[in-house]
Amino acid sequence: MPLKHYLLTPGPTPVPERVALAMAGPIPHHRAPAFEALFAEVREGLKWLYGTKQDVLTFASSGSGAMEGAIVNFFEPGDAIATVNGGKFGERWGKIGKAYGLEVHELNVAWGHAVDPALVEAALRENPRIRAVCVQASESSTGVAHPVREIAAVTGKTDALCIVDAVSALGTMPLPMDEWGIDVLLTGSQKALMLPPGLAFGAASEKAWKRNETAALPRFYFDWRRERDMQRKNQTAWTPAISLVVGLAEVLRWLKEMTLPEVYARHERLAKASRAAMEAIGCELFAKRPVVSLTTVVSPGGIDSDKLVKTLKTKYGVTLVGGQDAAKGKIFRIAHLGYFDDLDIVVAVAAIERALADHGWKAKPFGTGVGAALEVMATAEAK
Amino acid sequence: MPLKHYLLTPGPTPVPERVALAMAGPIPHHRAPAFEALFAEVREGLKWLYGTKQDVLTFASSGSGAMEGAIVNFFEPGDAIATVNGGKFGERWGKIGKAYGLEVHELNVAWGHAVDPALVEAALRENPRIRAVCVQASESSTGVAHPVREIAAVTGKTDALCIVDAVSALGTMPLPMDEWGIDVLLTGSQKALMLPPGLAFGAASEKAWKRNETAALPRFYFDWRRERDMQRKNQTAWTPAISLVVGLAEVLRWLKEMTLPEVYARHERLAKASRAAMEAIGCELFAKRPVVSLTTVVSPGGIDSDKLVKTLKTKYGVTLVGGQDAAKGKIFRIAHLGYFDDLDIVVAVAAIERALADHGWKAKPFGTGVGAALEVMATAEAK
Repeated sequence: MPLKHYLLTPGPTPVPERVALAMAGPIPHHRAPAFEALFAEVREGLKWLYGTKQDVLTFASSGSGAMEGAIVNFFEPGDAIATVNGGKFGERWGKIGKAYGLEVHELNVAWGHAVDPALVEAALRENPRIRAVCVQASESSTGVAHPVREIAAVTGKTDALCIVDAVSALGTMPLPMDEWGIDVLLTGSQKALMLPPGLAFGAASEKAWKRNETAALPRFYFDWRRERDMQRKNQTAWTPAISLVVGLAEVLRWLKEMTLPEVYARHERLAKASRAAMEAIGCELFAKRPVVSLTTVVSPGGIDSDKLVKTLKTKYGVTLVGGQDAAKGKIFRIAHLGYFDDLDIVVAVAAIERALADHGWKAKPFGTGVGAALEVMATAEAK
Repeated sequence: MPLKHYLLTPGPTPVPERVALAMAGPIPHHRAPAFEALFAEVREGLKWLYGTKQDVLTFASSGSGAMEGAIVNFFEPGDAIATVNGGKFGERWGKIGKAYGLEVHELNVAWGHAVDPALVEAALRENPRIRAVCVQASESSTGVAHPVREIAAVTGKTDALCIVDAVSALGTMPLPMDEWGIDVLLTGSQKALMLPPGLAFGAASEKAWKRNETAALPRFYFDWRRERDMQRKNQTAWTPAISLVVGLAEVLRWLKEMTLPEVYARHERLAKASRAAMEAIGCELFAKRPVVSLTTVVSPGGIDSDKLVKTLKTKYGVTLVGGQDAAKGKIFRIAHLGYFDDLDIVVAVAAIERALADHGWKAKPFGTGVGAALEVMATAEAK
């Protein structure tokens, strides 16, 4: 029998059957009342998910398009921004800023570590020209959760905006935009929203919209004001990715049925179980302040993690990802965001136990990792 | 019984069942060999469809994103461009150019008419600073086919680029990029490619890539050089819209099975049949040089075409579109691009005959339009 496939990557993530079937139906026309009603439902659901009274805008693009939008809509040429760079996605803020002529102050953080909010506060104090702090809620190249709430508290006392890429975080943990004072909050479709890639989302606070009035960087496709004015009419400026919007409506309905506290608790439980399993078999965790959306693990015994990932894929059908850039060959990453349950973690841990042994590393008897994961799950249920 | 729905709009267009089912399958990871093999197949198929040796780049965006890319990758601030403005999409070239600080020379053409290539030639002669001519192969707001081949022959004798938006044209008519000397050729997924919206495509000639070396407009998400370098490795710079790429592979396979001459002949036949039907019932065609992808018709007897469109939708389940801007209330548009056959045209014409009568206009007996369409189809078959 061909291998069954298990997708445990931090995007794309598995699409639930009911969502895939909804998207396989006939395509409604985007200028028709039926689509407008659907889009109104989606807009309302996104506000609920974001915890905001602001408009949450939908774009036909990947998350990087929303990151570009978060830059080009809120600055003037030559403006200074601070970026938290502790991984691939943090680095991207700097690349976008430079592409559009901004003065970029990178707050460099060692891979695997979270930024210290005091460092952000000091940067803003020392350089009052800095007009924004750009950060990831979940840096998925390292599995680190940056302290977004604390950073928003810092920027909230200044004129700087707090710009948060939550592409692999939103829907896995509370990120109440208005309550925490986040100024720009981004996400994408292919993570906790359980859809294929192709949609990105962004919302802006009053403070950010005020800034937008004088923003002078060039923009067209990612012009948020034009989108806001259109989307308030339940239309989009450019043709929307209709089938994905149909799927999104189904996802938002399902998230409401499950309730957000339940969804967050499940992600928390899966993350705890994964970490406990890896530690039980003697592996070191890579992220010092781990996100709940993925678990990053140092490959033990000098095993090249790329080779381990290959074994997992070809022998067990389990798709994980290894490390990038500074972490290449050194770490592997177990994603558990979106459509994942307890037994998906059992599958991943069991396959990892086997694959590590295939590569000559077996510190504990088979089942040790799985057992630790099950303990965490049973304890969570008993509470 | 609820109404059956018939979608005859110039994007989105109906998605064939085999394509919808392919897209409903499990999502492959975009950094995995299986996706790379699929993307290699897609890249090859797109070159075949474009008639080019150049790379055809795939973007997660709607067609407007590809239009933005066609501007930001080939110019310097202050460069002059000429745009053919004879409809909504022609107008968009000017908006994008101005958003990025270009000097825009609009060649205005009355709605319903095609641009005269002599006008383009004169503009380039009078203003040698013009570095490109931007035009639509199919201006879907009016149903007009601009003479792209002739315009490319004109720009070919100058330093100017010929930039062609073929979003609603490619796959309906021959547009051999290399043979005709088109410098930048764009299209989108939701037209003749029979997919949901969410993918856009662009290719550039040697002449355009040479220009790209000194292009200095800011860009990041739509940076074509970065995409080209990645896509040559069967990867994308940013997360691709994976499910749509899976569908695209299926579409390209099917187009190859049908063969392009057959596909173009079918579009030609459906267009001829639609025009013959409308003229037979006494309606005036709006486009003086009609495209094969849609048929635009002046609403007869002073009937508000928006009301006619509403009747078609609510009483017959047939979704057409009316006119925009200058043509609002005055025309209706029957699209037949992509997954359409002869009997789809029969459905559209029959419903139009009924709906016009509902609005008090009936110049000919019922069946006159359908009969004219069938005559065209039978004649085409006899050849």
